[in-house]
Amino acid sequence: MPQTHEKEKEHCLEDFSIGQKICTNPITMSKENIIAFANLYDPQDFHLDDERAKHTSVGTLIASGWHTACTAMRLLVTNFPKIKGGMLGRSVEKMEWPIAVYPGDTVKLTIEVIDLRPSNSKPDRGVMRTRNILRNQNDEVVLSMETVIILPRRV
Amino acid sequence: MPQTHEKEKEHCLEDFSIGQKICTNPITMSKENIIAFANLYDPQDFHLDDERAKHTSVGTLIASGWHTACTAMRLLVTNFPKIKGGMLGRSVEKMEWPIAVYPGDTVKLTIEVIDLRPSNSKPDRGVMRTRNILRNQNDEVVLSMETVIILPRRV
Repeated sequence: MPQTHEKEKEHCLEDFSIGQKICTNPITMSKENIIAFANLYDPQDFHLDDERAKHTSVGTLIASGWHTACTAMRLLVTNFPKIKGGMLGRSVEKMEWPIAVYPGDTVKLTIEVIDLRPSNSKPDRGVMRTRNILRNQNDEVVLSMETVIILPRRV
Repeated sequence: MPQTHEKEKEHCLEDFSIGQKICTNPITMSKENIIAFANLYDPQDFHLDDERAKHTSVGTLIASGWHTACTAMRLLVTNFPKIKGGMLGRSVEKMEWPIAVYPGDTVKLTIEVIDLRPSNSKPDRGVMRTRNILRNQNDEVVLSMETVIILPRRV
């Protein structure tokens, strides 16, 4: 029988440890995708069109902060060890965008497990808190956030 | 000259007041859009496919929490008074998803201004904090979050 690849193993709370760190593959945010996202979810001039962006407080086309956050989510889902039953977020805290993402920027995510806690009321599950930092090609932080994820215990 | 519509006036910090509340129009989250979003940003079985969702911890197709958050952002941008220069988020806090959004659910957003503060260091701008609550057709809360928005002062 072929060996199960680490990414395909289904992980429970007991399989993680505080301090564990994962760095994802990079992803480039194209102008086309920035505009397509903005049309659907954040239709503002500085996310939609080069010319119209010139007349805004930003002055140039930048990605919606929500597009940046969703790109971080994609990197998290596709790079983090697979959680048994799926990765379900309970909450997000302290989401900040220190600087903008520009068309063509390449970003990658660092995910650090900063807390692991069995549920007090439900013995079959627990929560994991991760600190997520998204950096651009110049190693500048473009997004930081903490996510609280519900995951099963190995019972 | 035709009168400027309220939505087209460009608002500064001085045009808002703490306690001000806006309720947006509703929007329906279709199965097609839920799956399209998930394919791009949250590719997990319970967001992608009815059949595959049955074998997850959720058991049925639900919208990605990030899709729900981006839908709230769309409602915020398209219903809130236009801010001079554009609406730029500095941070989001306490984003929570108390219950899931299912295909066909209709959601609407209540936005309340809970703080307004001139910047200490930059006299031409300030920050506004809003509490945003997204409810479904049964008046259940599906998302809550606080956003901190940078906006100009009338100087």
